[in-house]
Formats: sequence, C-alpha cells, structure tokens
Amino acid sequence: MRAAGIIVEYNPFHNGHLYQVKKIRHELHPDVLIAVMSGDFTQRGEPAIISKWQRTKMALAAGVDLIIELPYIYAVGRADTFAGGAVALLSHLKVSHLVFGSELGRIAPFLNSIEQVKNHRKLYQDALAAALSQGISYPNAHAAAYQAVISESGSEFVDLRQPNNSLGFHYIQAIHRNKSSMVPVTFKRKEAGHNDAAFDPDASIASASSIRRCLFSGSTLEQLRGKLPETSLSLLIEEKKKGRLVDWETFFPYLKYRILSSSADQLGQIVEAEEGVENRLLKYIGQSETFEQFLSLVKTKRYTWVRIQRLCTHILTHTLKSEAKEAAVQQPAYLRLLGMSATGQHYLSELRKSFAIPLIAKIRQHHPEELTPDLRAAQIYDFLSGRSGETPTETGHPPVRYGS
Amino acid sequence: MRAAGIIVEYNPFHNGHLYQVKKIRHELHPDVLIAVMSGDFTQRGEPAIISKWQRTKMALAAGVDLIIELPYIYAVGRADTFAGGAVALLSHLKVSHLVFGSELGRIAPFLNSIEQVKNHRKLYQDALAAALSQGISYPNAHAAAYQAVISESGSEFVDLRQPNNSLGFHYIQAIHRNKSSMVPVTFKRKEAGHNDAAFDPDASIASASSIRRCLFSGSTLEQLRGKLPETSLSLLIEEKKKGRLVDWETFFPYLKYRILSSSADQLGQIVEAEEGVENRLLKYIGQSETFEQFLSLVKTKRYTWVRIQRLCTHILTHTLKSEAKEAAVQQPAYLRLLGMSATGQHYLSELRKSFAIPLIAKIRQHHPEELTPDLRAAQIYDFLSGRSGETPTETGHPPVRYGS
Repeated sequence: MRAAGIIVEYNPFHNGHLYQVKKIRHELHPDVLIAVMSGDFTQRGEPAIISKWQRTKMALAAGVDLIIELPYIYAVGRADTFAGGAVALLSHLKVSHLVFGSELGRIAPFLNSIEQVKNHRKLYQDALAAALSQGISYPNAHAAAYQAVISESGSEFVDLRQPNNSLGFHYIQAIHRNKSSMVPVTFKRKEAGHNDAAFDPDASIASASSIRRCLFSGSTLEQLRGKLPETSLSLLIEEKKKGRLVDWETFFPYLKYRILSSSADQLGQIVEAEEGVENRLLKYIGQSETFEQFLSLVKTKRYTWVRIQRLCTHILTHTLKSEAKEAAVQQPAYLRLLGMSATGQHYLSELRKSFAIPLIAKIRQHHPEELTPDLRAAQIYDFLSGRSGETPTETGHPPVRYGS
Repeated sequence: MRAAGIIVEYNPFHNGHLYQVKKIRHELHPDVLIAVMSGDFTQRGEPAIISKWQRTKMALAAGVDLIIELPYIYAVGRADTFAGGAVALLSHLKVSHLVFGSELGRIAPFLNSIEQVKNHRKLYQDALAAALSQGISYPNAHAAAYQAVISESGSEFVDLRQPNNSLGFHYIQAIHRNKSSMVPVTFKRKEAGHNDAAFDPDASIASASSIRRCLFSGSTLEQLRGKLPETSLSLLIEEKKKGRLVDWETFFPYLKYRILSSSADQLGQIVEAEEGVENRLLKYIGQSETFEQFLSLVKTKRYTWVRIQRLCTHILTHTLKSEAKEAAVQQPAYLRLLGMSATGQHYLSELRKSFAIPLIAKIRQHHPEELTPDLRAAQIYDFLSGRSGETPTETGHPPVRYGS
C-alpha cells in the first residue's frame, strides 16, 4: 500500500496547500494521504489563527485522508525537534513516501547535502561552535557551518537559507536518524516565499502569513476569495464573525500578566529560556503595550524574533524544560487522531493493530501523563480565544469525520 | 507624645470611617493619627475597588496623618496573621494607643476573654482540634473552642462571632505576644455590620461592601452622596469613568488562565493551598464563567468562601508558601510609607531615627528581597485594572503628601 505523508501547519489551509495535495495525488497516486499537523500553536511560536479542529476540517475537505496532531513539544520546537517528532509519527503510521514542498524542487541536492554534512561532521561542528561563540543566532550559525562544509566540494547542494529547503533538509536528516525506509520526495512550492507578506490581489496563491495579515486588517474578506478553498474561506468568515480569529496581540495581556507575576528563576525553568534572556523579558514587559512592541524591545542579534516568540508561547502555556526534555529524549508516545476521511478510517482499521504506539481518538479526563502539555495548550488556546464554552471541549472531542 | 494607631482597609473610605477618625480626635486628642492600611488586596482576599494610592488620598483628606502599607503577606492573611503584622508595624511606629471599632464598644470584656483563653490554653486547644477534625472551618472551630473556654466562667466576655469583635480580640492578643506597651482602646462602631450589603438610601453610614455593590450595580452614583466624604466620592466617580473600579469579576479571566495553566502540584505550592483544595479548583475552573460561579462550586463547609477567595488572590499574585513562611516567622521588615500630612511628616522627622526597621518612601528598581511580594501584587493589580500606563508606576511612586 502506498501511503504518502506530509508535515503541515495549515494556518490557514489555502490554495498553495491545495496545489500540493493535488500534485501528490497526480504524481504519486497514493492509496492514502496522511498529514501530521501542528495543534493550536505553530513552529514559529504563534497561536494558530483558527483552532486545530477547524484546520482539520479544511484539510479533510481538500482531500487529506488522515490528520494526526504533532504533539505540542515538537510542534513548537526548533526545526530539528519539529522535524524529528513529525518524521517519527509518519514512520509509526507506516508512511512509504514523505513529501515536502521546497524552493528547490529536486531531491538529489538534498541527499548530496546530507551526505556532505555527515562526511565532514567535525568541520561542520567546529564551524557551528565558532559561529555560536560570536553571538550569532542558532539558525544563522547552522547556515554558516553548512556553507563551510559545502564549499569544500563541487557537487550540487541545496540552499538552506531558503526556509522550506531548510525544513526539508531536517526531514531527511530525521529519516536517516530514525533508520526509516520512508522515501523522501520533493515538489517545487507554488507560492510566494513562506513568510512573504506581500499580497497580490490577482494571484490565486498567497502565503499563509499574507492571508493572516489580510484577515486582521480592515480589508474585506472578499479579497481572499480565490485564494482559499471554499471550506477554508467560510470557516474563517464564520470565526471572524464570532471574534475568534487569533493572533499574538489577542493573547498578549495574558502573557504580560504571566511575566509580571513570575521571577527570573521561574521564567528560567521554561523551555527555551536560555542564557539569561528571562532578564530581558522582565526588563521590558512593564512598558510594552503590544506584543509587537515587546518583541522589538527584547530581540537582539542572538535572540531572534522567532526564538523569543517560541519562548513566549512556552511561557503562556507554562511548559517547563523538564517536560520538554522527557519528550525529546523519548519519541512521540502516541498518535493523536484529529480527523479522517472514509479512506483514512479504512487505513487505520487495517493497520492500527500493527502500530507500535497507541492511537488516541479522544482524550479522556484520566489520560496518560504525556498528553498533559497538549491538553494544557489546547485548553489555554480555547479559553483565550473565547472557545471554552464549546461542547465538546478538548477532553472528549471526537475526531472530525468526513465523507462517510 | 500621644500617637493613636488604627488598622484599616478603607475599601473605600466612607462616613463610618470618618466617624471613627473624628471620634478618636475628640476622645483621645492624639498628636498624630497613624493608619496601617492594606495595599491593593484585602484580608478577605479581594482586590480593593480602587488602588491604595487613591485610598491613601481619601484617608489623608479625612484627617489621618500617616498611612503605612501593611505588607501583602499580612494584609491577605488569616485574622491572626493580619493582626500580628499590623500590630508589629504600629509598635515599630511608637504608637501609644491602638484604637479599633467593635460591635461591643468596651474594652474590659476583651481583656477578660484574652485572660480566660490564656488560662485555659489546653481546654481551648483540645476543643479547637476536635472541631477541626470534624471538618469545620478554622474560624468556626476557633469560635467553638472559645465558647468552650468562656462557658467555664461567670465574667463578662466578648462575642467573637461578631467580625469586628473578633478582629479586636486578635489585635489585643498580638499586643500581648509582642509584649508591646500599646494601650488598646475600642469604640462602638457606627454602621451596619461589616459585611452587611443592605443599603439604606437615607442613612449617612453604609457598609463598605454595600457601597461597593452600589458602585457595580447600574444605580446612579448620586445615591452615594451623603454616605462618603467628598474626596472619596469624587475619586470613585473619576475612576469609574475611566473604567477602573475593580472587583473579582474584573480579574477572573486571569485567575482562570492561571489555574488552567497550572498542575495540582504547582497550585499546592501557593499560600493557603491545603488539604487538596487545589484539586477542587482544577475540577471546577473549566466550567466556570464567573468568579461567583467558581467559588460557589468550590466552596464546602471546610473551605469557606473567604478562605478560597484568599487562596485565589494568592494564585493570581503567585505567592508561594516559601515566601509567606519567611514573612510570618520573621516580622514585617520595613515600614512602607504611602502618605503623610504635615503633622505626619513632622512625626516621622522627629522619630524615624529611632525606628528599628527602615522606613521606605519609594521602592527603587533594586530593592530588598522582602518587598518582592508587595511589588508583584501592586504591578499585577495596576496592570489588570488598566493603571499600568500611569506615571509614576509602583516602582518610584512617591508618598502622597497632603496639606503641606
């Protein structure tokens, strides 16, 4: 059976994502298409604009067969943690092909690059350490070390300064580390750069961040028609009417309260609080009226915007280093099912007995310890975005079913 | 020099308080009148309706000469902790007479009662332990044990079921424990019962709680005219216009967020979290839409409303058992000056060199460790009540001066 796996955030699901789904169907003809998706918070450390349940509906409507939640600890992690968690889940799900979009669009240079880094590990690590010691941020130090390694050789390599190339690189590294038999496949992304906010009113594909910006600006939602599938657009319109579209500014008062009520020692116990950055948070929080202003004040060359943003997410969800450590050392301990088509359901009923970790369809009141960070993050997201009055709540929410 | 001391909350300052000030002036002719006042949170575990700086202005305008803040750990403590901290401060301030209002209004029965409890300590403590073991709340167990002691004798005793009598009893006990030479004096209170919410539109004295209720109801502020001094009324009107009058419902979303993001173990580290009450908080928080509803769900015979309310205040301000323990074992370590009249200023300049603990007029950025809980509580109160944009902030706020 051919099972294609993708790693997604769908924040929100738009025509670029739809293009990827169709491309995979057309090129690979998979029997089932499985997505591992971030929950309510994303890898860049932002609350998703709309909850994971709605994003699951969008994905199912567009033809994805199974949506499995990437646990919070991995979803809001550095690229290597994110990739490691997602690849492990796809591997547990018996995925045969891992498909990812990239700026490059061909797989060979990725494999060359991985090979090259592996063969020059010492050179790579020395360059990384040298860059870090100069106070350069981790992603930039990683890029510099990589550059040092590939300049040694004449083969074709992938440009890791491009964000989707970089993610793909981490996926393939994770496949190798997992000794998984999954075959990596890449297609060229059809959209503006990942974080490009430019918005072309005539184009049918716009980046997720430009769509989010449009939703938060005063502009009419009509501008978005033609950029998202109908299900995505109508769910967004519905939630916008209820005042439930979320960005960091929505949650900022709670972050501010949390930091004001914490000591430096307490903040130091939070995931990604390193090298005394907690003192900068405490120094600037009092005078900050918005999240944007706060991050502009705290950010330095060493502490990038995204790194601080992830730290702020962990502060908001009160996720401790001790919790993240256990998760990172071990591997994801469960498969949390968010949604399934009839095909997805069939796939699960055929294969779930062979899965090495449990498939969790509903979180019960009494649940395994490992689910605590996910449940906490979801409850906080639901409460702060005005969804906590909903039935069912996160505990007891059944998977979304589609087309059965 | 005759220095009269009072222990107050002024939440808000009303005609009953004005009556007390005038009565003291008329009966005792003190050279200076000193008040130890709660900060932004009160002994019953509520945020004050209006900040301590405004309440300081009210008190100065009504003729109090010095206002010293009762540190948070004592202000939001059980009656014995509250009384112990306040009496210690008055003692440091060289107060000669401690004056308190009571339902009874005569001092002899108080002294009889204290003597009686002292002489029958074993009987008292056995009765207390027996009552507590039946799951009765601390205040009720205390009252029952007291009843067991006084029924042994024929002298006149004070009825401790009345709240101001009970506070006075704790004040005198604290004087004795401190081996202080302060003379306790009591006057009969002229107002409805302390927590009586009944509001008589024609009476010139209404309870603080009935005034707060009136301020939060839709009724016009004109109803309050004649029940508060002019300064109190105009400050309340001004703050109401700015939307800054505070009750628990104002702060409830932040309490809810805090509890949702905490584990039972973490809540168990908070002051007054005892006997597993944290599990009840976690059980009921998700379904609670208001503070009132939440407390109604959590409350039991053993966990009284006020006890849970204080616990909620400590959760909101994130005050740990470790912090409270240090404070209770030691005594208040400083005198925090909130405001002074010319007379008060003169008193301080004459005597402050003889004070055994430092007088703090302004909290600096770098401050002694002991001030941390106070500063944190004030910053949280200011932020959540919409005051954090004010200059000066709690750090660097000078004492209020009046009439000089």
